[in-house]
Amino acid sequence: MNDRVIAHLLSRHDDILDWLTHFLTIPSVSADPAYAAGMQQARELLVGRLGDIGLNEVQLLDGGGQAAVYGEWMGAPGKPTIIIYGHYDVQPADPLDQWISPPFEPTIRDGCLYARGSSDVKGSTTIALETVAAFLAVEGGCPINIKVFLEGEEETGSPSLRAIVNKYCSLLQADAVLSADGGRASRVVPTINTGARGNNKLGFSVRTAALDLHSGRYGGAVRNALHEMATLVASLHDSQGRVAVKDFDIDATPLTERQIADTAAFPFDAAAFFSDVGAHSHGDPAYNTREQLTLRPALDINGMWGGYTGPGSKTVVASEAHAKLSVRIVPGQDPARVIEAVRAHLKAHCPAGVTLSFQNIGGGSPASTLAADHPLVLGAEQVLHAETGQRPIHVRLGATVPITAIFKEMLGIDTLMFGFNLPDEPVHAPNEFFRIESIAKGLRAWPLLLRELAKYEPADFHR
Amino acid sequence: MNDRVIAHLLSRHDDILDWLTHFLTIPSVSADPAYAAGMQQARELLVGRLGDIGLNEVQLLDGGGQAAVYGEWMGAPGKPTIIIYGHYDVQPADPLDQWISPPFEPTIRDGCLYARGSSDVKGSTTIALETVAAFLAVEGGCPINIKVFLEGEEETGSPSLRAIVNKYCSLLQADAVLSADGGRASRVVPTINTGARGNNKLGFSVRTAALDLHSGRYGGAVRNALHEMATLVASLHDSQGRVAVKDFDIDATPLTERQIADTAAFPFDAAAFFSDVGAHSHGDPAYNTREQLTLRPALDINGMWGGYTGPGSKTVVASEAHAKLSVRIVPGQDPARVIEAVRAHLKAHCPAGVTLSFQNIGGGSPASTLAADHPLVLGAEQVLHAETGQRPIHVRLGATVPITAIFKEMLGIDTLMFGFNLPDEPVHAPNEFFRIESIAKGLRAWPLLLRELAKYEPADFHR
Repeated sequence: MNDRVIAHLLSRHDDILDWLTHFLTIPSVSADPAYAAGMQQARELLVGRLGDIGLNEVQLLDGGGQAAVYGEWMGAPGKPTIIIYGHYDVQPADPLDQWISPPFEPTIRDGCLYARGSSDVKGSTTIALETVAAFLAVEGGCPINIKVFLEGEEETGSPSLRAIVNKYCSLLQADAVLSADGGRASRVVPTINTGARGNNKLGFSVRTAALDLHSGRYGGAVRNALHEMATLVASLHDSQGRVAVKDFDIDATPLTERQIADTAAFPFDAAAFFSDVGAHSHGDPAYNTREQLTLRPALDINGMWGGYTGPGSKTVVASEAHAKLSVRIVPGQDPARVIEAVRAHLKAHCPAGVTLSFQNIGGGSPASTLAADHPLVLGAEQVLHAETGQRPIHVRLGATVPITAIFKEMLGIDTLMFGFNLPDEPVHAPNEFFRIESIAKGLRAWPLLLRELAKYEPADFHR
Repeated sequence: MNDRVIAHLLSRHDDILDWLTHFLTIPSVSADPAYAAGMQQARELLVGRLGDIGLNEVQLLDGGGQAAVYGEWMGAPGKPTIIIYGHYDVQPADPLDQWISPPFEPTIRDGCLYARGSSDVKGSTTIALETVAAFLAVEGGCPINIKVFLEGEEETGSPSLRAIVNKYCSLLQADAVLSADGGRASRVVPTINTGARGNNKLGFSVRTAALDLHSGRYGGAVRNALHEMATLVASLHDSQGRVAVKDFDIDATPLTERQIADTAAFPFDAAAFFSDVGAHSHGDPAYNTREQLTLRPALDINGMWGGYTGPGSKTVVASEAHAKLSVRIVPGQDPARVIEAVRAHLKAHCPAGVTLSFQNIGGGSPASTLAADHPLVLGAEQVLHAETGQRPIHVRLGATVPITAIFKEMLGIDTLMFGFNLPDEPVHAPNEFFRIESIAKGLRAWPLLLRELAKYEPADFHR
């Protein structure tokens, strides 16, 4: 191959790594208002960068939450227009004491770049931006029209994304989306993500008294909010790990033969998958692990707390307890309807004398699916086959990329996830890292894919 | 009555209230090392006060934990020697945001003194100290020999109390203990505490993976530490509130006819008891509320936490979860054996794939019992009858005063709880208060009781 754009990108590898390292020093935690300055700093960095590389219409798209960063290059009339999606926000970094190096002080160890957001998803976002920059620098233009859209609230479930898309829908007209989020499924075989689970969230609390009570004066004669919370949470699953909520999966599309076959074709080492993180297989025994993770819905409590949690002891009967939960959902399921089933279950299991309340935590997204003969899939197959010599395997993602479903619903366009992160990089956990070797892989594949997509008519993306 | 000591005390009422108010500004939280300075400041205040009022041998009794404050007046040869017990440590004040006035800024509202430690037990401790001060000031001596012993770790289960008693056992030789801790059971009828439940504590944790996992990548195929913790906690009680731990109450002495009759004689408004704190009756249906609270063991989770508990959401599968529990135990039960039954239950209910670990939280105490014809009981009956015109009712305390059991075991002496706090004062909770009217009641009763006890021979206390 003798691609001048790729050659230019690979010659800039270390500069790109430096820029990414700087990007990672910015604590852009969208979930916690304490990091508002970090969010602002990330937006300023990106606005500057998009302008520097030669994009037009560079601006913030504000929908009332964390604004998205936008810029476009529309110099290829008649060619497809592709939204390049990434996000600049990151998960909270706690528990801080479990990080070997601080989350916002990027550190390289053993070929891996450790920092909050390195894998999810500043690394792959940087690859996408640099690809566009290289086309403009080397060839003076891109093979297709480009609209860069960098979201600021992916990690909080994209609460204002619908408002942004609604407000800027004419600006965002395009033929498809290429997402830097949603990474590779395997380090050893090429894969193409043809869909993702959706999600939704719910907070709930129980109250059993007006105030915390002395366990010597009330213990044995009153309800304890912690006992009640435990009983409610325990009721959500059976002993094998099946979700025990009535109608939880009633709308879930049954697995197809193709899905079962694709799943079986994926070289998955279940023993390593679990032992790598010190966990054990647990879940609905009617499905294998990959099916559980990508084709079946799930419900997890993400946080639970109440009573005295400090040093030593405090002998209280707790009067309140709290929990946050999230669901992962599959094609056929409606995010609101699934949460409603969970609420109904909790209400039905809440005894008299216990006050149950709910807290809304951002909006959910349905699952997404990309057709097997879509130009995005065909283009990615061509690129990955050429780069690896192997036929890519179709997989679905267990995690959620809300933009995929929202862009489909509101703009009528499909998304290909083409990130270069890998599943063993501990995103949403301490010591998140991104493999440095993935940068070069991405810098080769992204330009090729943009060239492939230029071979199609805009209408091909809308069949 | 024309008691010059009582008259002196009542004339000093406002000075005593001022001193108590100052005492309450000191944040002497024993459970949290962050309050070490407050503990030290409380000790210095008390050492100074004991010296000022004329006690001898004023000193700190250090057993390797929070030192106790000691002082004595031994000028009544042949008369009984009584340890006056109180404690200067207080419970942690959180949740801070629920306090109407800050916990360490004492504030009077509607005849009540609001502050952490006001009811438990700096108020009653001050009454006891001022009684001794008044005898020395007015009469130049007390009717009995006095050893003041003010503990610094009552709220953490008295972990070094045994070491202190062992180290200073010759200094602490006495005929009985009068405790400022363990208050009145009713505002309307006089009561005598003839015993208290014991207690013990246990911390435990579960781990399901080496690190927190992304719920999109692992949700539905691995165990979640929060689900496992909930299931374990839920298993500790049945749906009616009975403790479901095997052998939990196997050693508990069955209720006697006298206990059942005493309990029935106590004018207890169960509806008000529950509605005052916004709670509902819940517990072993074989016993009524007062029996549940004072004559039967109980188990409460005091704190439970894990996963993401901050603002917004974080879609993790939690890898660890934690809980603290305490038990209240009755005569016949051994604190260690009860906790061992709980540990055995948790181990038996912990599934494969979940790592269960335990944390020791301070030492427990057995329940205590005071004989109905003990001079402490007879003396208190005489005083309370004279002061109120009513025959005192014998009650047991649901809470735990570890010193009672420890002094019985190590020094062979009995304890009368003679505090003046009331059960509706929210100790161990936000907005703890002490009724200011209780100060005058205590300042009348304590001198009378010291005079009553002087009528007995030392040997009468040891029958």
